[in-house]
Amino acid sequence: MPDLHTLDGDALRRGGERALEMLAAYWSSVQAIEPGFPVGSTAKPGEMYRRFAGPAPESGRAMEDVLGGLVPGLMGGLTHWQSPRFAAFFPANTSAPAVVGDLLSSGLGVQGMLWATSPACTELEMLVTDQLARIIGLPEAFCFGQTGQALEAGADAKPFEGNGGGVIQSTASDAAVVAMVAARHRLRRLDGGREGRLVVYASHQSHSSITKAAVVTGIADGVEDQRHVRLIDTDGALRMDAGALLAAMREDVAAGRRPALVCATLGTTSTCAVDNLAAIGPVLRAFDGPSRRVWLHADAAFAGAAWVCPEHRWMMRGAEHADSLCFNPHKWLLTGFDCDVMWTQDRASLTGSLSINPAYLQTSAAEAGAVFDYRDWQVPLGRRFRALKLYLVLQCFGTEGLRRYIRGHVEIAERLEALIAADGRFELADRRLTGGGLSLLCMRLKGSDEANRRLVALANAEGRTFLGTTVAPWPLVEGPQAGTPAAVIRLALGSTGLTWAHAEAVWDAVRRAADRVVAEG
Amino acid sequence: MPDLHTLDGDALRRGGERALEMLAAYWSSVQAIEPGFPVGSTAKPGEMYRRFAGPAPESGRAMEDVLGGLVPGLMGGLTHWQSPRFAAFFPANTSAPAVVGDLLSSGLGVQGMLWATSPACTELEMLVTDQLARIIGLPEAFCFGQTGQALEAGADAKPFEGNGGGVIQSTASDAAVVAMVAARHRLRRLDGGREGRLVVYASHQSHSSITKAAVVTGIADGVEDQRHVRLIDTDGALRMDAGALLAAMREDVAAGRRPALVCATLGTTSTCAVDNLAAIGPVLRAFDGPSRRVWLHADAAFAGAAWVCPEHRWMMRGAEHADSLCFNPHKWLLTGFDCDVMWTQDRASLTGSLSINPAYLQTSAAEAGAVFDYRDWQVPLGRRFRALKLYLVLQCFGTEGLRRYIRGHVEIAERLEALIAADGRFELADRRLTGGGLSLLCMRLKGSDEANRRLVALANAEGRTFLGTTVAPWPLVEGPQAGTPAAVIRLALGSTGLTWAHAEAVWDAVRRAADRVVAEG
Repeated sequence: MPDLHTLDGDALRRGGERALEMLAAYWSSVQAIEPGFPVGSTAKPGEMYRRFAGPAPESGRAMEDVLGGLVPGLMGGLTHWQSPRFAAFFPANTSAPAVVGDLLSSGLGVQGMLWATSPACTELEMLVTDQLARIIGLPEAFCFGQTGQALEAGADAKPFEGNGGGVIQSTASDAAVVAMVAARHRLRRLDGGREGRLVVYASHQSHSSITKAAVVTGIADGVEDQRHVRLIDTDGALRMDAGALLAAMREDVAAGRRPALVCATLGTTSTCAVDNLAAIGPVLRAFDGPSRRVWLHADAAFAGAAWVCPEHRWMMRGAEHADSLCFNPHKWLLTGFDCDVMWTQDRASLTGSLSINPAYLQTSAAEAGAVFDYRDWQVPLGRRFRALKLYLVLQCFGTEGLRRYIRGHVEIAERLEALIAADGRFELADRRLTGGGLSLLCMRLKGSDEANRRLVALANAEGRTFLGTTVAPWPLVEGPQAGTPAAVIRLALGSTGLTWAHAEAVWDAVRRAADRVVAEG
Repeated sequence: MPDLHTLDGDALRRGGERALEMLAAYWSSVQAIEPGFPVGSTAKPGEMYRRFAGPAPESGRAMEDVLGGLVPGLMGGLTHWQSPRFAAFFPANTSAPAVVGDLLSSGLGVQGMLWATSPACTELEMLVTDQLARIIGLPEAFCFGQTGQALEAGADAKPFEGNGGGVIQSTASDAAVVAMVAARHRLRRLDGGREGRLVVYASHQSHSSITKAAVVTGIADGVEDQRHVRLIDTDGALRMDAGALLAAMREDVAAGRRPALVCATLGTTSTCAVDNLAAIGPVLRAFDGPSRRVWLHADAAFAGAAWVCPEHRWMMRGAEHADSLCFNPHKWLLTGFDCDVMWTQDRASLTGSLSINPAYLQTSAAEAGAVFDYRDWQVPLGRRFRALKLYLVLQCFGTEGLRRYIRGHVEIAERLEALIAADGRFELADRRLTGGGLSLLCMRLKGSDEANRRLVALANAEGRTFLGTTVAPWPLVEGPQAGTPAAVIRLALGSTGLTWAHAEAVWDAVRRAADRVVAEG
């Protein structure tokens, strides 16, 4: 066992090197074109619990022995998110720089709740969120102000001016909670008192985390409470209908309720549909007049990564209207979970709603107003040094590398789309209507929902891929007419190691599953 | 740069080994008895941002080069939580097994939001939370039921029966949010409809995260809203007055409000005072009658670690009354941040309040009711494989090692207390009143608040230690009489590498700072 009463550097190196070897071997096998194991776990309920069951040992054991029993034992219980043949959910990227950055974070073991509890933890996060904002072309108002730029240029230190800035949240769910709390706070400050129940708006294609955040914040009474979470109609391509949004807000005001927050989804989970911020922003101005009252939050959890490439930035047209915007580098930008970057143009409302300052947390630097305490930007108090992994990703791959990465995946998706389109048994969603050509393909085997579900079950059981399903109106079309809800196969590519050969293997698995479904009749 | 289009195992090993070397060197220097650098960072506001400022590079760089510039550059911006001379806040322990476990989690890169998205991620977490519950002597009702035990004994697989179980949250703040959401849900289910505003109760010594959770969940209108977060009076030793709690609840009912949750703090942040669950539980029964309506949450964030030793379990007497209880192995049990373990006896209320099941997340295993989807136990959807680090800690140190670890630190605190008591210039809080002898010492230099704050500022500026302060009634006494609020020095020991020699060095720094304060008059 490691030395119990010390931070045992020798044990760290021995155990760490063993773990690195195991991970390198795992990465090699998980990226094989032909699988050595199924992508989706075939473990039975209770099987993994039973495999490791028993009380914790009385005496400590050598780490190498523990690792030797643990890692092989886990394998059958993993669904391999890092397999490039994994396609069931949006990817959960990681990469060597991200893992090493996270290792540094674990080993340094500092807490970034206050600036004073490690200034580097706070200020490197301010820096990487500023850098990333500029890489994806966000308006400067989302950065820590012009002084941030001046500092970058080496000018004298001054407090960061302006009212913008970025923060790393754990997930987009957390960002949604924080946005709602800030929205409520701003509305109370502007309106004085609490008049009527608050209402949150999002399209019916928005992520479940938006409704869940409304439940957590008490805005909604439960996940079924459609009075306080209004899920707005969409057009034929599943984009929020801005006119319907305005009508719903006015209806709520007439009924004594108070519109608080609108969430635009830039790349929905189901089909990567993109709400139009450039249309929603003016609707809020029409509703509120010149002052911003209703909070506009943009959830680009998946698609935001693509904005490293200028050709995908049309999705964020109108971003200047948003009060907050987030995306997850831990999905499709090579940075391991957890790393949701959230920017705001109104950090005063975030910190005003989330700041609480007991005696045991007061510091002179914060009292002088010269620094940011990130605990005031999030729900938890404690926080890891998550900026390290994002810093390493940006430095090791460079902005050119990030563009090449996204373009590589989009090109694979386009080639695969062409193959599928050539197989007359399938129909595809028009990708111009679904994120404009990112790495998600939505498709159906022509026929019943049952046949589509059967295809996915067969392909997943065979194990060469792991597909997802959703329910979406079909077909997706331009214009107001929505299709009929149908079972849709989601082919969500984007694992770090994805190559064309993997995509071909996935397609081969899908085709053979289709052969069986068709043969079964 | 690492290979961009692959999970590059060679880059991982090279960069990882370099990071392990750097961390081993850091761990060695940070544990030195005589400091090579100050414990608290002396960086100026903006200094760290400026040090790394500039846009992200266009072209990627070699990871070793990035690490070589990054890690030395960070050092002056870190406050060294892993220094055994760090005493400003409750510790943020880590250890070699924890770091290696977290490294595995990063490298495997699986998501545990659903059972099906990696059964091992869910079931190892069920297992380690069961194991830890038994190590600290929690009632069996907080485990995954008797079937869990049967499974451990190797019996046939069955669904986990009962209504208990554990989950790893990020922080105790998150646990408080989840407990409040579950409490609100249970109350609505039992009472039907929403009648009156809800109220949360905790002692005025409770952690700021309890009030913040009430703001986040919308139970309170803001951090100053003392109508919906009632901070109950304490006795002379800062323990919640159970009679005052009952009176407040009845007063609220009379005013049309609805008591929803009581948070008992087992080991407060300020002084490690321990609320008496065995008195609070019967108060809730007196209020509610036989059925549980008001939710009793126990926050043992720091002190829960001590329960690995039977002699400290008096603090959890009455735990059978609690609906939920949490503590942070990431504080004082060798497991790196983030790792808050939360147990409940009423998991149905947790999952009932937090479950939302869109089409793209539906799985056949969950529909069969045979498995748990941990996304329904927390606010975020995504989740890391955090059980790995806790599993490695339990396996590598063993329950005997954990007891030895806690006892070693408590013994150091007791020896240090004796030294301080022998120096007539100081007065100490009676540790029988503050957690019964854990690793926190609360003390004052006899004299003004100003003198105490000056002492801390001088000691922290010198850099051999990093002390904290709080404000607490002084002196702490048995009985109803509370002292007068005063500035109190918190000497919060408990870093992983703590030895007696470090404690002596801390005391030496405190004494010399006192010499200067006294000499300055």
